[in-house]
Amino acid sequence: MALVPLLTDDQADAKARAVFDDIRTARGTDYINNIWRALANDPAQLQATWGEVKRVMAPGALDALTKELVYMAVSAANNCSYCLHTHAAGARAKGMSEAMFGELMQVVYLASQTNRIAIGLQVEVDERYAQPPAPPSA
Amino acid sequence: MALVPLLTDDQADAKARAVFDDIRTARGTDYINNIWRALANDPAQLQATWGEVKRVMAPGALDALTKELVYMAVSAANNCSYCLHTHAAGARAKGMSEAMFGELMQVVYLASQTNRIAIGLQVEVDERYAQPPAPPSA
Amino acid sequence: MALVPLLTDDQADAKARAVFDDIRTARGTDYINNIWRALANDPAQLQATWGEVKRVMAPGALDALTKELVYMAVSAANNCSYCLHTHAAGARAKGMSEAMFGELMQVVYLASQTNRIAIGLQVEVDERYAQPPAPPSA
Amino acid sequence: MALVPLLTDDQADAKARAVFDDIRTARGTDYINNIWRALANDPAQLQATWGEVKRVMAPGALDALTKELVYMAVSAANNCSYCLHTHAAGARAKGMSEAMFGELMQVVYLASQTNRIAIGLQVEVDERYAQPPAPPSA
Amino acid sequence: MALVPLLTDDQADAKARAVFDDIRTARGTDYINNIWRALANDPAQLQATWGEVKRVMAPGALDALTKELVYMAVSAANNCSYCLHTHAAGARAKGMSEAMFGELMQVVYLASQTNRIAIGLQVEVDERYAQPPAPPSA
Amino acid sequence: MALVPLLTDDQADAKARAVFDDIRTARGTDYINNIWRALANDPAQLQATWGEVKRVMAPGALDALTKELVYMAVSAANNCSYCLHTHAAGARAKGMSEAMFGELMQVVYLASQTNRIAIGLQVEVDERYAQPPAPPSA
Repeated sequence: MALVPLLTDDQADAKARAVFDDIRTARGTDYINNIWRALANDPAQLQATWGEVKRVMAPGALDALTKELVYMAVSAANNCSYCLHTHAAGARAKGMSEAMFGELMQVVYLASQTNRIAIGLQVEVDERYAQPPAPPSA
Repeated sequence: MALVPLLTDDQADAKARAVFDDIRTARGTDYINNIWRALANDPAQLQATWGEVKRVMAPGALDALTKELVYMAVSAANNCSYCLHTHAAGARAKGMSEAMFGELMQVVYLASQTNRIAIGLQVEVDERYAQPPAPPSA
Repeated sequence: MALVPLLTDDQADAKARAVFDDIRTARGTDYINNIWRALANDPAQLQATWGEVKRVMAPGALDALTKELVYMAVSAANNCSYCLHTHAAGARAKGMSEAMFGELMQVVYLASQTNRIAIGLQVEVDERYAQPPAPPSA
Repeated sequence: MALVPLLTDDQADAKARAVFDDIRTARGTDYINNIWRALANDPAQLQATWGEVKRVMAPGALDALTKELVYMAVSAANNCSYCLHTHAAGARAKGMSEAMFGELMQVVYLASQTNRIAIGLQVEVDERYAQPPAPPSA
Repeated sequence: MALVPLLTDDQADAKARAVFDDIRTARGTDYINNIWRALANDPAQLQATWGEVKRVMAPGALDALTKELVYMAVSAANNCSYCLHTHAAGARAKGMSEAMFGELMQVVYLASQTNRIAIGLQVEVDERYAQPPAPPSA
Repeated sequence: MALVPLLTDDQADAKARAVFDDIRTARGTDYINNIWRALANDPAQLQATWGEVKRVMAPGALDALTKELVYMAVSAANNCSYCLHTHAAGARAKGMSEAMFGELMQVVYLASQTNRIAIGLQVEVDERYAQPPAPPSA
């Protein structure tokens, strides 16, 4: 069970309800996920987080599905059960096939292992990879 | 400094040198990254890991660049300095623009925060997201 | 379910029961939390851990509630469901308001994100922050 | 070395420079920390992150120093070297004594251990701690 | 619930069923653990992972029980509930006594704390421990 | 650089110096590792931690070398560079061969991957592994 109550629309204050409305419009569904009902106990944080989700997950240089895949990879690395379940559903709704899901997870498994090799053996960065690219205006 | 010596070609045994040769052919470069020179102290693991890298990172349902992005996201979540430096270079070589890198990292930052919200508040999975899809033959 | 049985008072040995008694006295309640009943399978560790909890969580330069907040922040970062549930209750009993809980979690979410920015971009420490303060006797 | 260049004021674009100016005003110093110069490669993220830092770290139900302590505890748990160095300096500037720093770290060490006990033994949450408090309007 | 269906023998394809058969032979039991039934949705990964389990967990310079103990220590550090439950059973079947389990966990708890001390205080590696041993042929 | 000064014998107080003396006696060397010199800024924690190291790392149901291997595995999982360097040296001094080190790391890499499979796919614990053994007196 959550550490805070999952607020119903009636229990949420006006600021939180306004975010619920915006979520409903943006997602085209009446259903509000549990994480937003939990965050509604702190309306300022709810508003800030939802704003960032809209800003960051919108398609840009990366398309919306690629962003979902990256989000799931981080959620697997961070052991977030809630996030994995909700975003697996979201990614499938955005077109992730089971073959894509399988390959996504293969990369997550591989990186989990090769990350640990580099860390476990304390391998130092090769000199040739140690420099950032030049700034755009340089 | 690494916990094991980074073996030169002369110090590596025949099995490890065969992997070095395969890396050179696959990557079209004579340079062998430090992680492979460290792993060469354990030739069986070197061979197994390199085999998995070739299998998993090859394009399939996901293209090679998307796989690099996912790999970098996991490396950021796992705090692998070596992996971030080498794969940032690799992803740029495969066509990752600075705009793509920026958006990749935006998703990593966002997920790091929203993962922690779901975990910190111990939000339970919505019933509607709790079931896996049906098996293919069902 | 735990990997070890949660020992009742009757199942615990004399050393473990002595710790149970001390917990009851210190906390002013007859109830023994599950973690202590699990640790009772290893009485020496139970005794050592309870001793450290008493030493570290006692008020000093930081008051008892601030220590609870720090403890919860670490538990959120470490994804410890058990610790979050028990210490949220404990912190509320020590005077944590819902507004304080909300702000605590806001800092946890923010740090989760800004930590990942510094790690994800591999930002080097500014020279001016790289030195420790002088030793007291210097 | 960072994965992106640390932009000078001249290299940063107008949006990023406006954030630099706001940081200078808010902090009363001309110095801009490396993390902001790294983020300046992505001005929208720089603006969003700085805005959140101002919002979240301002005193409220918790005072500014307590928030710094919580921030440092999360940074230690997340293994963020950059964040530990810069926020140790910041917390000392806001009044953290060495005794407070010592006790902060003691709680971090203790929680790191007791979190691992609860996780390692897979202790289930006591029934009495499993429920959230009632919503405010109930 | 898992993100993918746990495939029965009938639902698994021929390649996955061949791995199931090999598991049954190697372990001398008809029972197939859930993780293999989940991985059966991606037969190539199932085959690769099972192959690595057989290769790595076989006795060599370290005996099979020591390898189980190391595996459990990593699983505790990574917060893998599934792995802790299945490998605790496996280790007990291979001869791990409750006293051994207790001492294993004591080391895990201690390292969780001392790791955090070294990280929290950002202690630099002593010069004398910074060098790897010489390569075998040197 | 560490966040606190590494105290010399002259800078450490009497309580810390007494721990230094005990370390010298127990280890048969005059050299004091950096972590103890950093912890000497908080003599009570120094004393508590050193006491636990002596208690936990002493041979018992598990021998001293097996405990070192478990300690290193946790340090690799927790990304503790300091701990990996110092304990690799310590384990080699206690008889860890390079073959043993290689197999230790192989298990760490494998568990890092299979932990992530169980977490990434959110595999539920098999019913048969969900119960702890009966208490000793039952």
